[in-house]
Parts: sequence; C-alpha cells; structure tokens
Amino acid sequence: METKTQIQEAIKVQGGVVRKLKSEKASKEQIDEEVAKLLELKAQLGGDDGKNQFVLKTPKGTRDYNPKQMAIREKVFNTIIGCFKRHGAETIDTPVFELKETLTGKYGEDSKLIYDLKDQGGELLSLRYDLTVPFARYLAMNKITNIKRYHIAKVYRRDNPAMTRGRYREFYQCDFDIAGQYDAMIPDAECLKIVHEILSALELGDFRIKVNDRRILDGMFAVCGVPDDKFRTICSTVDKLDKMSWEDVKKEMVVEKGLSEEAADQIGQYVSMQGGMDLAERLLQDPKMSQSKQACAGLSDIKLLFSYLQLFQVTDKVVFDLSLARGLDYYTGVIYEAVLTQAGVAPVANDTQNGAEENVSVGSVAGGGRYDGLVGMFDPKGRKVPCVGVSIGIERIFSIMEQKAEALAEKVRTTEVQVMVASAQKNLLEERLRLVTELWNAGVKAEVMYKKNPKLLSQLQHCEEAGIPLVAILGEQELKDGVVKLRVVATREEVDVSRADVISEIKRRTSEA
Amino acid sequence: METKTQIQEAIKVQGGVVRKLKSEKASKEQIDEEVAKLLELKAQLGGDDGKNQFVLKTPKGTRDYNPKQMAIREKVFNTIIGCFKRHGAETIDTPVFELKETLTGKYGEDSKLIYDLKDQGGELLSLRYDLTVPFARYLAMNKITNIKRYHIAKVYRRDNPAMTRGRYREFYQCDFDIAGQYDAMIPDAECLKIVHEILSALELGDFRIKVNDRRILDGMFAVCGVPDDKFRTICSTVDKLDKMSWEDVKKEMVVEKGLSEEAADQIGQYVSMQGGMDLAERLLQDPKMSQSKQACAGLSDIKLLFSYLQLFQVTDKVVFDLSLARGLDYYTGVIYEAVLTQAGVAPVANDTQNGAEENVSVGSVAGGGRYDGLVGMFDPKGRKVPCVGVSIGIERIFSIMEQKAEALAEKVRTTEVQVMVASAQKNLLEERLRLVTELWNAGVKAEVMYKKNPKLLSQLQHCEEAGIPLVAILGEQELKDGVVKLRVVATREEVDVSRADVISEIKRRTSEA
Repeated sequence: METKTQIQEAIKVQGGVVRKLKSEKASKEQIDEEVAKLLELKAQLGGDDGKNQFVLKTPKGTRDYNPKQMAIREKVFNTIIGCFKRHGAETIDTPVFELKETLTGKYGEDSKLIYDLKDQGGELLSLRYDLTVPFARYLAMNKITNIKRYHIAKVYRRDNPAMTRGRYREFYQCDFDIAGQYDAMIPDAECLKIVHEILSALELGDFRIKVNDRRILDGMFAVCGVPDDKFRTICSTVDKLDKMSWEDVKKEMVVEKGLSEEAADQIGQYVSMQGGMDLAERLLQDPKMSQSKQACAGLSDIKLLFSYLQLFQVTDKVVFDLSLARGLDYYTGVIYEAVLTQAGVAPVANDTQNGAEENVSVGSVAGGGRYDGLVGMFDPKGRKVPCVGVSIGIERIFSIMEQKAEALAEKVRTTEVQVMVASAQKNLLEERLRLVTELWNAGVKAEVMYKKNPKLLSQLQHCEEAGIPLVAILGEQELKDGVVKLRVVATREEVDVSRADVISEIKRRTSEA
Repeated sequence: METKTQIQEAIKVQGGVVRKLKSEKASKEQIDEEVAKLLELKAQLGGDDGKNQFVLKTPKGTRDYNPKQMAIREKVFNTIIGCFKRHGAETIDTPVFELKETLTGKYGEDSKLIYDLKDQGGELLSLRYDLTVPFARYLAMNKITNIKRYHIAKVYRRDNPAMTRGRYREFYQCDFDIAGQYDAMIPDAECLKIVHEILSALELGDFRIKVNDRRILDGMFAVCGVPDDKFRTICSTVDKLDKMSWEDVKKEMVVEKGLSEEAADQIGQYVSMQGGMDLAERLLQDPKMSQSKQACAGLSDIKLLFSYLQLFQVTDKVVFDLSLARGLDYYTGVIYEAVLTQAGVAPVANDTQNGAEENVSVGSVAGGGRYDGLVGMFDPKGRKVPCVGVSIGIERIFSIMEQKAEALAEKVRTTEVQVMVASAQKNLLEERLRLVTELWNAGVKAEVMYKKNPKLLSQLQHCEEAGIPLVAILGEQELKDGVVKLRVVATREEVDVSRADVISEIKRRTSEA
C-alpha cells in the first residue's frame, strides 16, 4: 500500500501530465487516457477522504443508453426483428462469456482484443468477441445440423475505439444465419433479400450490395501467379481497395508483400471489374480465369445467385464486384457487403484494423458470407455444418438514425403514454387515481402526476414535453356535471364526455392513432 | 510450460479424483467442479494433439437459451414490458461492466461474489451485480432527479448456483423504479399496482403481496429493547421467518446474536401480525409501538398506501405483514414482496445466502421497496434522489412458464411463419421463389424449403412440426389452371384460389388469426 502522501504526490505529477497534453493539443484519446489515470489516483485517495469520491463514469469505450437512444434503438430492432421473423427465423441466446479456450485460435491477431475475466478460481473465461463463434459452439454442442436463427446481443473488444465515430468496446451485433445442407445459393440469396428488405425499411438512403466469392478470389490469385502461401495476405490487401487507391494497393502488394509486378497488374485488371450475371458469364469464358476450377465453381454459383436474386426482385441494388474481399478468414464461398451510397449520410471513416464485422468499409452497414468450415472446428469428429449468414451493422445504423433525428429536430418520444389524467383544482387526487386505474385496467397507456395538488399548467406542460396526445381533465364543475373534459394537446380542442363513457371514448381515440 | 507427459500424468490423477467422488456419491457441484478441472487439463493437451479437443460447454452456472426457451422468454418480456409502458415508463441501458470502484462497498459480504475482469492494463472493471447500483450511478452521473424507468438485463454473481432450482451465475433482472421527490406513497402504490397487473397477466396462479416498512421494523426493534447496533442483524434474522419457524428464529436472536429473551418475545408478538389498513390503525394506538416516532411515520404511510391501493383496486392481494424484512440494507421506507400461494406451482427452495433480489423467499416472484439514500452515495455532494422500485423475479417466472408448457405438453412455436410455399412436383423452385417474394413484400411471414425439388410430404411435415397454419401449394395442374392450392394444415381443407388473388386471400386469412 502506498501512503496517502505518496498518492497525493502522484496526483500532482499526473495533473501536470494532463495539463501538458492539453496545452500541446494532444489527441482526445491520449488526454482521456491520462485523465483516467488521474481519476484513478484520486479514487484511491477517496477511500480515506470520504465516501463520495467515486469516479462517476462508465468504463472506457462504453456508454449508457438514455431513454431517447433506447427509443431509437427499439425502433431499429423492431424493423430488423420483424424482417427476420417474416423470413421464419428463430432466435437463441448464449452467455456473455465463454470458456477462454472456446475463443482461442478463432480470431488470429485480434485475439489480443479479447477481454479475459480475472482468475477467481474455477474456469478461465472471456467475454464473447462476436456472435458467430458462440453460434458455432452452440450448434456443435447441441449437434444441431439445421437452423435459421438470429441473435442480437452485445460483444466486447478491448480496442482503442474512436467513440466519436460510433465505435465502442461494448457494442451490439445483429446476426442472421442459415445453417444446414441445402441446394446451392438458395439460402445465400435469401440473406441478400433480407439485407435489401432491412435497408429499405430503415430508409437510410440509397445503398449497394456488393457480392463476390472467396473461390473466385482464390482462383484469380492462382491464375495471376500469386504463390499459394500469399493468398490470404494478398486478399487482405485487396480488401483495402474501398479506402485506398489501386496505386497504393499495388505498392503494398509489390513492396511490402513481395508480389511480382506482373501478378499485381493482372490482379489489378480483374479487381476493377463490376457487373451482374453477365460479368460472371464473361469471366467463365475468360481464357485465364476459366483455367481455375475453383473460380469456375464460384462464377457458376454467382450466376445461380443472380437468377434467384431476380426472382427475389433485388438485383437493382446488387453488384458483382471482384474487389470485394472481406477481412475474416473463415469465409469459404459467397461474400457480400452493403454500403450506403448517399453522400452526406454519416460516412464513417475506417480505422486501420481489419477483421471486425462492423467496420469493414466506409459506409458499410451489413456484411456476411458463407462459412462452411467453422462449426466443424468445434465438432469432436470435425463434422461440418454449412452456414451462410449476414451481420447487420446495427451500431452504425443507430448513429445514423440518431443523427437523422438530431438533424430533423425530430421529437423522439421516450414513452408511449396516450393520455394524462389531470386535475383542474386541488383535492382531486382520489378522482384522478380512480380514473387512471380504469384506464390501466382497460389497457390504455396512462399517467398521473405523483403530486396531491399539481397545477393544471404543469400537467399540461408535461404533456407537451412528453408528447402525450390527450388529457383527461377532472375539475369540480366536471364532477358536478358527471363529465370529464378531454383535451387534444396538439389542437387545444376540448370536449366534455360523460364519466360513464369516458373510458370507451378514450379507447376509441387512442386506438385510432 | 508443463510437458505433455506431466499433463498426461495430471489427467490420470484427476480422472481418479472424479471416479472417487462419483463412487462416493458426492454432490453434483463437487463432481462438476472436478470434471471441469479434468476437461481443462485435457484441453491443455488438445493444443498438441489436434484442433478438435475443445470442451463443448458453457461456463459453469450459465446456459444457452434455445429457440423454445426464447419464445417463452419473449412472451414473458412482452407482458411485462407492456405493463411498464402502460404506466409510462422509459427504459435505459448501462454497460455490462462498471468500474470496480462503482460496485465497491455496495453489497456488503456479497462483494466476494462479484466477477472481476482481468487487469489487462487500464481501468479495473467488474461485471454488474445488479441493476440498481448502475441505475443510481446513472442518475448521479447525469444529475437526473426525476425518472420512471425500467431496465431488463443480465447480471452476474460468482455464486454456487443450484441450477436445477432455476438459479444461475448469469441471470436476468427486471427492474422498474420511480426516482423523484413526490408526495408520499403515490409512486410506492403504483409499484404495487404494477406487480399486481404483471402477476395477474402472466397467470401464474394466486399470489399475495406482503408489505411492511423499514421504519416500522426499526421502531419495533427500539420499543422492544433491541440495542441500536443490533437492528440490522436482528432484522436479517426476522427476514428468515418465511423459511424458519419462530422458535428457530428466536433461538438465533438469543443464542447467536445475544438478544435478551424478553426482547425476542416482544418481537415475536409483533411479527406474527398480519392485516390491512386496520392493523396499521391498531398499531398506531398500540401503547408501546406508538412511542416510536419512526414506527408512527411508517404506520401512517402504510395507512396512506392502503388508501391508494384501494383506488387502484389491488387490496385483494396485498397484506401488511410485520414479519417482512427483506435482506438488502439500502431500503429506507416501504418494502414489499410478492409470493405465489398456489401449492404445486414450482415452489423454489431457497438457498441460505441473503441479499439477492431474486431469492428472497420460497415462491417469491417480485420484491422491492423505497431506497432514498442510494443515489446520494454516488453524488459528490451527497444530494439525495428518493427512489422506489420493484424487481420482477423473471428467472423464476421463466422456469414456471417452462414447467407449465412442459406439463401441459403445450406446443411452443419458435417461429411466427404463417404460410409455407410448397410445390407438388419437381422443377417448380422458380415459381415458389416468385410467390414467396410477393408474400414477403406484402408483409406476410412466409417460408420455402431450401431445396430445388423437395417432396410434398416433407414440406407438409415441416408445417406440422413448426405449427405453420397454411400451405400455398404450386403444382403443374395449378399452374395450367392459373390457381394456387391453399391448404389449412389443421383441417387438411384445400381450396383453389386464382393466382392473381392469392396474396390478398392469404393476407385476409393470416390477419384473421
């Protein structure tokens, strides 16, 4: 234990560090980091000084959701879950932590970002890093070979998040996956249909869904003369084409990764190609590409995929794009990614690190693909369960919706109260409680103020602020006349309704809305 | 690093330990613990031996929710959230972990059950232990003095859970709280109204809501001659009256806690009392009880509470019970607890440990009270925000609902699919995809099998199993005739509908349901 004096000394020093950084206009992250250290020191002192020395903050990279954010979040969830249910999906849930070994060896370099729990005796645990590995563990553990499920839950990455850009250490993932041995491209096409439906329903502006196939990429690398052991690393360089120029990508391939300039140029020709089913057909005839069996299998499947997408009426937004690579290693077939194309709609700049489902590209709002090998990694006998799925970039969608609400100065209601039971004079609490009880019992969303004698004005003001559309006003005169005054907040219209009919009249009005 | 041989030796020894425990019929927990160690050792070996040596399990004390459990969970959530919204509540969310110091000093002895995260540099973090402390932290941090909010989320306790009895290390809490300076007992009464509404709507069988007041307990202890410094410990002994006889409780007071026999006997007289508003009135006249100012304040408030409960039409289930004490230290006024009274409905035996919101009593399914001091513990200036709230014992409710579904052999649907688009012959995939697209676009929940040529029988069987009520059958004859055959799965009734009208006919039928 350090002495109090030592800690006070350390606080002085740390305070100086913070002041220096601020004067040097250091990055916000850097300053935050040092401020956190300062607060920690102060908290250590707190134990001696008094009980109210808490550091009032959420952990770094996390946030609370306030009621307004929750209202937006609920709206987005309802739209997305509605779509998943329309397509017959079930849902599952898994624990927030897994055995550490369950996550080991699944995320390559990013494993360093996994949160471990302290060893307090018993099993070694880690917070889940995504929902896909727990899903694969669930399938293997329960020997499930067929399921169409969605899972919306928070995942954890010990990243250095740029929170201003909507990235956090605790964030939601929203996954839809179809597991099972089926005929080619039918479930894959449904995943794209779902992305199309969700992005259309959320009204985020125009979008494109790029598709490609890992087998086409691998075949392309082979026929362009990329050595086998360089496929993955060249693939991750190609993945940067959405945020780097071809020149820079080529440079990385040749200078950093030691690819021949000739091979890079050949790749360059292919990855500039975009189109639809016609492009797949043309490439099937391409003298070089057609030499790769893998590429041909991928291209035939892209053709089949487009034929189903036509039936699903979504080809207007889908483009076959040979530059699409995606970061994750586990994809084995079709891959796809949806991007918003409307300028001005919250283009979120990308960080350098790859592999994360939710930060694949500028404006990327959904991504996924086929991963036929992952479940087999968990099965003791290596039995495979083919899977295809999509992850909706829900955190980015939240920020876009929040920005939109902000920009339009939209009033976001945080409750659904339909009617406020108010009183015009004093001593009417009992009457108010009686009426609100009848409303609750009739299923009407209703409220009273928790005061014996609230002012009418403050009750009406509360309605304005909270967006409550209707007020039922009780007053001495109304009680004598056996009526309740109904007031429409928006128009200030008022009408007397007999006390006996008031519940049914309110039900009528509120069910119309 | 241990060598492979060392690990293999350790596995042999550990295997012997497990066999010995099993032969001795040791407790399940004890065996599980040793098996976990064995599996961990085997996993260590796995790294050398092959990649499929994972231990396929969820961490101790946690579970996955399968689609059927999720369907039940969703139904329960909808009922409860519907009630919270009817009462005008907002909702918030907080991170799954908090700064360790935020939780420090809030849970007394139970602090040892808090999950800490590993120190990987940066802040020291702990998983949340309940939702109340994060709520108080949220209010103080955002200087919120008025809010009516609910929060449903998972919390974490490093407990030795009896999972067979529905207790886990990861479990849901479901809290509703009203914060703000209001007139006495109005929000408190609404909390009880909410418990009444929720338990009625969930149809869990008959129930009672016991109410008491911490001030009445303290006043009672004072007038019975309990020394001030023994209030809390005697209070937690009284709390055991729902699972121990009075004789045993008295013994604990006198023998273990050193209370005089006379004082214990006086307490014994009071804690056997149950009633309604009349009992509160009688105790206000009680020569001894009326000497305590505190007790009188509590009794007057109980009277006021009952008058509001009458207006809320819930007095049929509420009983003023002087033996109700509740474990948590932070209550300052009214306390309450709802118990199921119907025999046979999943009475869940109680563990010895106290303080946990969700295991307060045999059959307890909700509990709460007033805690006016907690938020002030977080405010730098100690500013208080009075709060009253209730926690719905949602995990227990889940298990009861699951048991009920099991017992009634109820078919729990895990999807909401309304219609299956099927084919009677081969080569009709395109027609099926076209029709299901129209249905999806019209907002109908619909499905096709992901096979080019599924057998009609297997499509119909899937409908039976999944509870899909309607099948739209496409066949060669139907295509020629320009119709679709609609089949009601339950009755096997079939009718031909013209292809042009089939969407509206299906919409008509499915919106009726």
